[in-house]
Parts: sequence; structure tokens; C-alpha cells
Amino acid sequence: MEINDINVQSYPGSEKIYIKGKIHDINVPMRRINLTPTVKVINGERMVHENAPVYVYDTSGVYTDPQIKIDINSGLPRTREQWIAFRDDIEQLDCISSDYGKEREADKSLDAIRFSHRHAPRRAKEGKAITQMALARQGIITPEMEYVAIRENMNNEALGIDSHITPEFVRDEIAAGRAVLPANINHPESEPMIIGAKFLVKLNTNIGNSALSSGIEEEVNKAVWSCYWGGDTLMDLSTGDNIHETREWIIRNCPVPMGTVPVYQALEKVNGDVGSLTWEIYRDTLIEQAEQGVDYFTIHAGVLRAHADLVGERLTGIVSRGGSIMTQWAVMHNQENFLYTHFDEICEILARYDVAVSLGDGMRPGSIHDANDRSQFLELDVLGELTEKAWAHNVQVLIEGPGHVPMQKIRENMDRQISSCHEAPFYTLGPLTTDIAPGYDHITSAIGAAQIAWMGTAMICYVTPKEHLALPNLEDVRNGVIAYKIAAHAADIAKGHPGAVVRDNAMSKARFDFRWKDQFNLSLDPERARRYYVESHKDDDHFCTMCGPNFCAMRISQSVIDNCSK
Amino acid sequence: MEINDINVQSYPGSEKIYIKGKIHDINVPMRRINLTPTVKVINGERMVHENAPVYVYDTSGVYTDPQIKIDINSGLPRTREQWIAFRDDIEQLDCISSDYGKEREADKSLDAIRFSHRHAPRRAKEGKAITQMALARQGIITPEMEYVAIRENMNNEALGIDSHITPEFVRDEIAAGRAVLPANINHPESEPMIIGAKFLVKLNTNIGNSALSSGIEEEVNKAVWSCYWGGDTLMDLSTGDNIHETREWIIRNCPVPMGTVPVYQALEKVNGDVGSLTWEIYRDTLIEQAEQGVDYFTIHAGVLRAHADLVGERLTGIVSRGGSIMTQWAVMHNQENFLYTHFDEICEILARYDVAVSLGDGMRPGSIHDANDRSQFLELDVLGELTEKAWAHNVQVLIEGPGHVPMQKIRENMDRQISSCHEAPFYTLGPLTTDIAPGYDHITSAIGAAQIAWMGTAMICYVTPKEHLALPNLEDVRNGVIAYKIAAHAADIAKGHPGAVVRDNAMSKARFDFRWKDQFNLSLDPERARRYYVESHKDDDHFCTMCGPNFCAMRISQSVIDNCSK
Repeated sequence: MEINDINVQSYPGSEKIYIKGKIHDINVPMRRINLTPTVKVINGERMVHENAPVYVYDTSGVYTDPQIKIDINSGLPRTREQWIAFRDDIEQLDCISSDYGKEREADKSLDAIRFSHRHAPRRAKEGKAITQMALARQGIITPEMEYVAIRENMNNEALGIDSHITPEFVRDEIAAGRAVLPANINHPESEPMIIGAKFLVKLNTNIGNSALSSGIEEEVNKAVWSCYWGGDTLMDLSTGDNIHETREWIIRNCPVPMGTVPVYQALEKVNGDVGSLTWEIYRDTLIEQAEQGVDYFTIHAGVLRAHADLVGERLTGIVSRGGSIMTQWAVMHNQENFLYTHFDEICEILARYDVAVSLGDGMRPGSIHDANDRSQFLELDVLGELTEKAWAHNVQVLIEGPGHVPMQKIRENMDRQISSCHEAPFYTLGPLTTDIAPGYDHITSAIGAAQIAWMGTAMICYVTPKEHLALPNLEDVRNGVIAYKIAAHAADIAKGHPGAVVRDNAMSKARFDFRWKDQFNLSLDPERARRYYVESHKDDDHFCTMCGPNFCAMRISQSVIDNCSK
Repeated sequence: MEINDINVQSYPGSEKIYIKGKIHDINVPMRRINLTPTVKVINGERMVHENAPVYVYDTSGVYTDPQIKIDINSGLPRTREQWIAFRDDIEQLDCISSDYGKEREADKSLDAIRFSHRHAPRRAKEGKAITQMALARQGIITPEMEYVAIRENMNNEALGIDSHITPEFVRDEIAAGRAVLPANINHPESEPMIIGAKFLVKLNTNIGNSALSSGIEEEVNKAVWSCYWGGDTLMDLSTGDNIHETREWIIRNCPVPMGTVPVYQALEKVNGDVGSLTWEIYRDTLIEQAEQGVDYFTIHAGVLRAHADLVGERLTGIVSRGGSIMTQWAVMHNQENFLYTHFDEICEILARYDVAVSLGDGMRPGSIHDANDRSQFLELDVLGELTEKAWAHNVQVLIEGPGHVPMQKIRENMDRQISSCHEAPFYTLGPLTTDIAPGYDHITSAIGAAQIAWMGTAMICYVTPKEHLALPNLEDVRNGVIAYKIAAHAADIAKGHPGAVVRDNAMSKARFDFRWKDQFNLSLDPERARRYYVESHKDDDHFCTMCGPNFCAMRISQSVIDNCSK
């Protein structure tokens, strides 16, 4: 397997640094963007002012650390293993527990595509509550909690910016269920991050092969690529062959928490025949994936048999794959959705590995027309009920949200989610604010995502330009991630997240100073910014290509300031 | 001169139609997207339901009318000339009035680049009030007013949708100054459109060569191209050589109202030496451009000498070119901005041709840091004062707005603009909601534009991906226009504009029916949507490439509906 070059390079003009913990022996990665000084000549005198470096939240893992040799075949360093190893509430198993996992392991024909470095899975000892939520409720600040507290603050200590985010604050938010720290004990390669309304807005990317396209190597490439551009979590939505093996490759090389929708694989196991799905197959799939290290499962336990009759009211029916599968199953068997009836057992399994549950919105609207309808909000009430059940098992909970929602209906989504779901973090797909722009749905949805994130949505799931049309390639992933970094950052500023504007101000000062290289390096996409500039750049870099030499507003404006201050 | 092929083709799956006026003898163009029927097989029976065509607002002019032969060298049909010709308040001059225009006309060396079909300019007869505002105040519904009333309604008559937009309503909004209908009597090629908070949100595109790049042919190409994708108005911001000739080519071939910033050309006339600018040169430039047919002038009359001292408070000073020029002039001469002191004379000139004034925001913030500061709002108050002056001359007024504004500060911009400027239509550039994404500023700004348009901004000025980096090429123009069509349309939906969701609903139904061609044809960018799909499409078109054959949510969901309704 080979990874696209750019993924394993450092960011331009930047250094990878690590900040040490004060409570725990941890090293929190950050990217430091080093800036050039401001140089001015006033009345013949050359004035030089240093510009402080800017620290940036870094989701890229060790791929951007030149000190670390990357070997995809061995996987990433298992940093968190040291934090888990000493815990006496966790045991390491002799072998994997799921029937399906064992079957795949025994199949010699898979050796060629198998990730070779296997690790025996860990699990909570019988009767032990090991999740971050359980520990937070006991008043324990884990290494993961201190890690995210440091990570969220970036420039704040250096610049003396007041921040509400302390390790104790992190612990309190997790204990209350207002924040989720996805940290399966079997994914020790993952760098801790936190999802909650009072933290930086996070973004999730979806990758995954379907029966129609894309292989293992391409999916690992996409995973690393999406982290490089700023993806905070990653969902593997693969549906074709070799899901199990693909997932192992991705998890072992993935520096961010990974989520899945287990029913996709369960359905593959019955060859796509929804009627043949059973709780037992699903249950085995949960264990199989939990032991591989999946950090959160999307589970469509809120679509009830009774809601199926409402689908006919809609213009676009059910657009959630998981939702449609479980609805069809319930209708065919005329029984309640087995994910709902077995929800306590599901939570028992998740709790043993610290897998978070992301309660899927099977009834999310697939069109402007269907937004905020009764199917959607009836399900949301069920998700609230399930949230309390999961919390009783110390299982961390995310609530998934729409979808397609016109701007005037976004606020109601946020308000209802908060009241129905007891402030569990909201995690929305967009929402798309119009249906008429296929090919540009990263934009239709970034408009909605920025608004709902400002209102308090903790994580936004990206949409790529190919949504509704095709699976994304690498360039689509990049465009989707950057559009969502923009939405998330705009929301961080609007929410007043401590220090969020530091990077904007550094960029603006670099603009006013005509420090072009600093502008590129401070950009969300340094490569593209530089390329656009260079393609049309002429000799004199003391004006930009927008205005021409006679007209540069900033240059004239600098001379106005110089004149006025004389 | 040759125009890029795509510009002169019809939209796919669409017909150009014309709706006749009831008051006046006018033909209002629209694009009709014809849809295929919905075909279902239930219990072996084939059911066919017709789908009504969707009517779409069409900014492309006759370029998309296969009945019209386009000849760039002759210019577009001068349709509005017939409406103007019979008016006894307007006279046709023997020759152009401006000194500069005469000088250029006499210069034989320009023959090679000159647009050859010259038209003698028209002007109001002495003492006559001829602007759309003057006529509206007299209770007259002009052909232009009826035209825009029909144009704004699209599907509403066919679908029986109630609409507040009638010719009388249009007249009333113009009379009150709440809407602007840009319609220079010397630009009879332009198809009337209206800018006001109670109408469809409009978008402006900027083109223009600078001394550094791009020629006449390229600029005409960009103009036609931006109208093809949906630009409602067009500003020619050319600096550099042959501005006069370039403008003539563009106006004669431009089906939408065109704006300029006259001070750019005035400054070229003094070789970029701000100190040498005079009222006389500027005045001659206004007449020159008004007689060519420019429909609105951006005039930075609100930047006052006293405000210059506040620029030092800012991180990015003045980023408006016009604002920086006038501020520098005022500081150098220690005199008040001559656009402010001569504003009544300016209005007298504009009123004779029905040129609208777009009051420039010379102090618009150029960074998140500078948003909503006192420089900006002090100027806004001056713009309110100038609005009343212009209205006293029956000159239509737009108010320009920012710029760079974080989301939490957008609302204050809209509220203050309404109260300071007496409900004159607001026309904003974005705003960009973060500074850190050069290369993607069409997205950072579409996020802000959608919000401020929803709040009541009447026209949004597009930003291309190259903003801050380079001048846009054709593909950048397309990306910028579509991003802004999305923002405008999302705002139209959120404002509840009558019939705005018709196209969304048609798209969503086409999705649920797997009518792929209809989906492409209903898209804002049919070519891109089709291309993305075709590139990854396999044989079976009854599922999309997102989910694969086993997982199509919509297919499953259709079978659920079919089952439930049995």
C-alpha cells in the first residue's frame, strides 16, 4: 500500500510541536505556523517587528511529523495503549470474540489483503464501568480529558486569552452527557478529541467503498487525506466486499476517531436481504467492530414500526440508508425495530469497549419539502428516550440530525434537539439549504452547517460536491473538508470560542503587510492559495493582482495612515 | 470577436419562452424546463403521471434563444428603445456630450478596437423628470415595471400561487425608494430587473481587466458567461487601457444592467496620480459613461475627511479602492471629499439618464477584526443623508455594504442599514465570515451572503475563489455565480418568496423518481451535475452511485410506501 505523497509531508511554513500535560504524561500535538516579520520603511528608516507564531489545531496525526517514519503496514504508533495498559478495570483477551471475526481470521484466502499486525482486543472486566463517561462521573480526569483540554486552547496560554476549557470543565461536560470523547480502548492510535457545544465545532468526513467502486488502498488514502485537511472524525461507510479487512487497515492507520453504521455490514452478511436480518447477526457485528476499534456506531434505533405509515406523506420518503433498512424490516415482519427492542443489550456491549452511540436519524428529511415534518420530530423524541437509556449504561451519546432544511427552519431543529435529547451533542449532515444545486452541495450545506453550528451543533458531517451524484474522489474530499472547516470556524468565531480569531487576525495583518508567504501558510489550504496567486503573479509583490499598481487600496490606505500619524 | 460556444447555446432540456404583458406590449423571457413523466410499475400495471414544466428566471438574454442570431459586432437587439422612443420627455442628442468621449471618438488609432455601431445618446429634456422613480411617484406603471412584475412570478400563475408582486406593487416600491429598477435610457439592450427586499434576491458579478491582465474579448466573454450562469447585474471594474472602448463592447452586448465605479477611470485619466483628480474630470467621466449606457454608478461620496483619522484604528485600513482614493485625496488636499461636496450636481447628471447611484462603502471592513467598527457605521450614517438627497432628485439609490463580517455581527449591519438609509435596498459584498480561506472565498462569503439576504439585503455581490489572490477566469466566474445563486435562492426560500420552492420540489420529486435527466436539467449547473454523474455511472440507473444496489434508501423507501399503501 502506498499513501499519496502530500499526506505524509509537513504543512508548509509550519512545525509539528507537542505540548506536555500537567496532570498526565501526555504530549498534545499542535501545528505552529511560523511567521515572517513586518518590515516597514518610514522616512528612510527600516522598522522590523516580529510576528508571533500561530498555533493551529492539528488533526493530521504523525503523518505531518517529519520525526516519525510512517509505515502503513505496521500502523500508527499506539500511544494511548500506555494509558490503558495499566488500568485494572480492563482485560486483554486471548482472541477476538465475534463469530464473524473468527471466520475471517481463519480464511487463508484473505491473507493477501489482510493487515498483518494483529493486536489482541481489550474489553472491560465483568462488572467494570470503563467509559470516559463512567470515569468522568466518578470525578476522574483521564489522560484523554486533559489531552483535549490542552488541544482546544491552542494560542490561549501564549496570548493570555481567558478560556473556560480546563480538564475539570472537560470532565464535567462528559459526565453531564453534554460532550462526547470517542475513545474505544481498541483504537489506541486515535488522538483524543471532544465533541460538545462548548468546544470547537468538529467535522466528520465520510469515506467508504460501495459495491460499485473503490478499493482498500484508495479508502486508506482518503482517510489520511481527510485528516490532513482537517477532518476531526471519520466514518467508514463501506458496503461492498471485504468490509472487515478494509476497516482494519483504516483503523490501524487512522489518527482520529472512526465511526461506522454496523447495519450496513450486517446486511452484507445476509446478501442484502433485509428480511433475513436478525438481532444475532447484528449483535455479532457490533462485537466484531468494537474489537477492531470503531469509536462510535450510528444506530438507527429510533425508527419505529408506527412511523412507517407516515413515510407516504413525504416527497422523498426515507433517505437514510439505515433508516430505510430498519423501516423495511419492521414492515416486513410487522414487528418493532429490533435495534429499539434490544437497545439495552446494545448499550451493554458498547460500554465494555467505550464505543459511543450516534443515534441515527432514520427519518431525516431528504428535501426542503420534508424538513421539520412529524416523521422527523417523532423520531427525535424517541432518540431522547434512548439517550437516557444509554447514559444509564455510561454510554456516550451523539444525536444525528438533518439533512435538507431551509434556513428558516434550522433554528427549530436545534431547539427541539436540545429539549428532546437532554443536551446530548448534536451532529448534523449539513443541512442543505436548497435542493437545486447538485455538484455544489458542499456549498448548499456549508451555508446550513455554519448556522446550525453557531446555534450549538457540536459536529457537522461534511458533504462533498459529488453528493447526490457519485462517490467522492480525493479532490472532492478536500473540497468537502475545507468547506466544512470554513463553516466550523465561522461558527467558532460567532460562538466566541476563546482564541478563535487569532488566526484570522494574523491572516489579516499579513494581508495588510503584503506578507504573501505568511498568507499562504495561514490558509486552510496553503497549496491552493499559493497556486492561485502564483499562476497570475507578476514581478512586484507589493500590490496584489486584484487592483493593479495604480489602485491598490491597502497600499493607498497605508500611506493615509502614515500621513495622518505624522 | 468570438464568444465561447456554451454561451450561445440553449440550456439543456429547456425552452426559451416569452410571456406577454397585459398593460404594455412587452415580451418577458423565461426558461421553461420540460420534465419527463413519472413512470411506475405497480402490480404489473404501468402508471404514467405527467410532470408540469418548471419556469425559471432567466438572466441569459437572447443568447439562449435559438431564434435569434447573435452578432457581437452589432450588439444585442435594442428592445427597450421602442418603449423610450415615443416618450416626449426624452431627447436624442446629435453627438455625445463628454469631452473625453469626443476625444476618443476622434482618435483614428482606436478604430481597430472600437465597437462600430454607434448610437446617438438620449437624455432627459431640460426640466423633465424621467427616472423610473420619478414616473413611479407620478403613479405611472412603466413597461419596465410591468416587465419585472411578470418576471418575478415565474410559476405562480400556472400553479395558482398567491403573489404580492403586481405591477402596482412594483411601482409603489420604486416610488418609496425601497426598490431600484436600473434602466439607463442609453442601455436599451438591458432586460428590466428589480432590486428590493421584497423581490427575489439578486446577484451582481464583477468583471474587468486591470493593467496587469485580460483584454476586451475576454471581458465580453466573461459578461455573457456570467449572465448565462445567473448573474442579475454586472459591474465592469476595468482599470488599465481602453476602458472606454471595452465598456462600449460590453454594454452593447450585455442583457443585464451594468454598473461601474467612475473614479477608477477618472484616476486613469490623471495617470494614477490621486492628487491631480478634480471634480471636472470626474464630472466629464460621469457624462461619458452615462451616455454609453451604464445603469448604476458606485460613488464613494460618504467617506469624509474627518474619517481618515480613524483608519489607524483598523487592522486592515481601507480595502475599498474608491474609498482609499477619495480618502487620500481629502487628506492630501485637506479638503472634504469632492464627491460629497458635489453630490447634488452628481444627482442632476444621473437623473437626466436614469442612472442609479450605488453609494459606495469606502469604509467597509477588510477583516473580521474591523467589522462593525465606528469608521464603517459613521459612513453608513452619511450614506443615509445622501440617500435623501438623491431621492430629492428622483435618483434611484442602492447602499453598498460589507465585506468581512463574522456571523454574529451580520444582523447589526442589516438593522443599521435599514434605519440609517431609510429602507433603500442594501447591496453587500458577501460578507465573508472568516479571513482564513483564500482560494475558497466564494464559500466563506456565500455563508454570510445567504444570511444577510435572508435578513433583507436585496442584492449580493459575488466573490470568486480567486478573491484576495488573482483576477477570476471564466471557471472562477462560474463558481462564484453558482455559489451566489445558491445563497440567493436559499434566502428566497427562507423569506418565503412566492413560488421559490417550486424548483426544489420538482428536483426532489425527480430524485425520488430516479428521473436523472430531469435532475440535471433542474440543476443550477446542469453541465456539472451531468458530468459528475456520468463519470461514475454504471448500467442500472435505478439507484445512484452513492449507496450501491443493495442499499438504495429511496428504492427501499418506495417499496415501504407501496407496501404500506396496499
